[in-house]
Amino acid sequence: MRVLILGGDGYLGWPTALRFSSRGHEVAVVDNFIRRRWVASVGSDSLTPICPLEERIEAWRAKSGGNEIRGFVGSVEDGDFLDGIVAEVRPDVVVHYGQQASAPYSMASREQAVETQFGNTIGNLNLLFAIRDHVPDCHLVKLGTMGEYGQPNIDIEEGYIEIEHKGRKDVLPYPKLPASLYHCSKVHDSTNIHFACRTWGLRATDLNQGVVYGIETEETAGDERLITRFDYDEVFGTVLNRFCLQAVIGHPLTVYGSGGQTRGFLNIRDTLQCVELAALNPAGAGEFRVFNQFTEQFSVLELARLVKHAGEHLGYSVEIQHYDNPRVEKEEHYYNAIHTKLLDLGLRPTLLREELIESMIHVLERYKDRAILTPIDPHTRWNPGAPIKL
Amino acid sequence: MRVLILGGDGYLGWPTALRFSSRGHEVAVVDNFIRRRWVASVGSDSLTPICPLEERIEAWRAKSGGNEIRGFVGSVEDGDFLDGIVAEVRPDVVVHYGQQASAPYSMASREQAVETQFGNTIGNLNLLFAIRDHVPDCHLVKLGTMGEYGQPNIDIEEGYIEIEHKGRKDVLPYPKLPASLYHCSKVHDSTNIHFACRTWGLRATDLNQGVVYGIETEETAGDERLITRFDYDEVFGTVLNRFCLQAVIGHPLTVYGSGGQTRGFLNIRDTLQCVELAALNPAGAGEFRVFNQFTEQFSVLELARLVKHAGEHLGYSVEIQHYDNPRVEKEEHYYNAIHTKLLDLGLRPTLLREELIESMIHVLERYKDRAILTPIDPHTRWNPGAPIKL
Repeated sequence: MRVLILGGDGYLGWPTALRFSSRGHEVAVVDNFIRRRWVASVGSDSLTPICPLEERIEAWRAKSGGNEIRGFVGSVEDGDFLDGIVAEVRPDVVVHYGQQASAPYSMASREQAVETQFGNTIGNLNLLFAIRDHVPDCHLVKLGTMGEYGQPNIDIEEGYIEIEHKGRKDVLPYPKLPASLYHCSKVHDSTNIHFACRTWGLRATDLNQGVVYGIETEETAGDERLITRFDYDEVFGTVLNRFCLQAVIGHPLTVYGSGGQTRGFLNIRDTLQCVELAALNPAGAGEFRVFNQFTEQFSVLELARLVKHAGEHLGYSVEIQHYDNPRVEKEEHYYNAIHTKLLDLGLRPTLLREELIESMIHVLERYKDRAILTPIDPHTRWNPGAPIKL
Repeated sequence: MRVLILGGDGYLGWPTALRFSSRGHEVAVVDNFIRRRWVASVGSDSLTPICPLEERIEAWRAKSGGNEIRGFVGSVEDGDFLDGIVAEVRPDVVVHYGQQASAPYSMASREQAVETQFGNTIGNLNLLFAIRDHVPDCHLVKLGTMGEYGQPNIDIEEGYIEIEHKGRKDVLPYPKLPASLYHCSKVHDSTNIHFACRTWGLRATDLNQGVVYGIETEETAGDERLITRFDYDEVFGTVLNRFCLQAVIGHPLTVYGSGGQTRGFLNIRDTLQCVELAALNPAGAGEFRVFNQFTEQFSVLELARLVKHAGEHLGYSVEIQHYDNPRVEKEEHYYNAIHTKLLDLGLRPTLLREELIESMIHVLERYKDRAILTPIDPHTRWNPGAPIKL
């Protein structure tokens, strides 16, 4: 297959590129490196020392025995650029990670909210047109998020729900209660993609992903030039990754509020499995397919306790600290999200065990001197006008 | 009340400004006149000869005995501009009409789709931040559209639906199946506004409006300098207005496909009533209220027959012609949309009777020599890649 990966320099995009390349597919990646600049703009940096894209590609060529990954530098918001790339690569599948993916970043200011919604929504819209005009049979594998659903008081289904109402029935898009302006942008994408499938007959899979944790994948382990980025700050770090680094550097684990917030989680290795499964089993023409992509549910406090236990087992002294919650969210709520479709396609989950946390901690130990302390405590508030709870 | 009207130079915005001004409210309008340019760009023009905003405002001052409407020229997509206007006017209510509102325009090309979604979504997002930062108690009255819902096989409720699922219940946003990329942009707005109400405690009413018809309102009638625009081309004209003009100029009524498409409709005078009712009865703090704003349901073919009958009664020879449907849409479908909340607030519908169509035709007769024929037949296809049905 010809695989085009948008956001191919990122935390997930880069390991995904290696996975497809290692399986013998023709891989092209697009990136404008803005994630590197965004992280710098909040005073942080990847914990892992990541190489420039060119060097990564060269290292992969050497390590893989000659596998070529084509790299293109540019922005998906630039419709003419993206149109040209799609016309040139003529992909069988596009994996779209090329978005601003931080909820706090999107909530920090009007400018950042607009940047997020503009880049995400318009970039994705440009992609839909490029696929329609050049490769209408191409399968779009789009990264969505479980955060589109929010915390409804009923079970979360995979994209659609059958509703019986006043004696009539229909299967309709599952209602969304997105958790930030970033999450809103992903709902916009789902709306646009679904429309493009209904109207233009495109084929798409929306992977509503849970919170990803982990560092190494089969292809990146063992060669530091291939390592992927690892963020741990309050803006770009995700919760379990953040906790693991905090345990290593002796920072209290930053639990927001009570920590009862429950979410779906998955290992970075399972992200690659899921994306590969989706690509190998494409949606039908006109089909907008939605998979809930996570393997286990945890509350934030449960994760903090797991990390504390694993850290203490390795000799660290780990403290859990409850911070005033900077987000507007439910801290205790019903949560049960269905996630069977990827299992049906053959996903074999890498479950979160204490040994897995310990092995993450061992990798982080190598880089702990690179940690920057300032951007770790939560500062980005969802509602800066509301009084602070003390 | 201090009323700020975005899009105050438009078909509905201008008459709305006069209505609030005539009731003694302090009115300010914002417009960048892009609707005038868009209509010119498709080779068309308002059938009615509309004055420049400055002259309209001056004419209203003279006619009303000194009522001042403040006019600001600028774009809602310009966040700093809009922020400054909201800070200066400090409105009690913002009525937001300032959007690209044509479905065909949004479907004509990637550039027009992006222009529509960028202007609408980002303009509205800018507005939410401006309200949050300067007048958090201000009531946002946002024009949505019934076209956000599409044609589900169950009754359409007003914004929310109670869902019972696997033994649990919740009231959730009503699922959306938008009918064009323009309609998608309105779904994006609803998602963002709902989020802003939940998160920042803003108060908003989303008026999911049906298809509007009519020309004169109480305040614009009797003084040609106050008349509002009237579009009849395939891109910016709405169906009943288009049919009435077609009857007058002897063009066949352009029914797309079978004409079984059923929608909600309302008179322009009722739009003003509804907006006024919403403004006088604001949503609560944190409340995102949705009203379905129309008074009657018709199929397109029913409307064509009504216009044919009224036109023939006035001596015109009127032909109904079925055109290959340029849109991707259901032509026969279940449709039953609830619309009781505005009636509960006191809306007194102006129902569509033959005399009303005849009186519209009489107004159009005055301007029929201004009609431009080229942009009337349907050319803008939803799916330009699909084979044309012959």
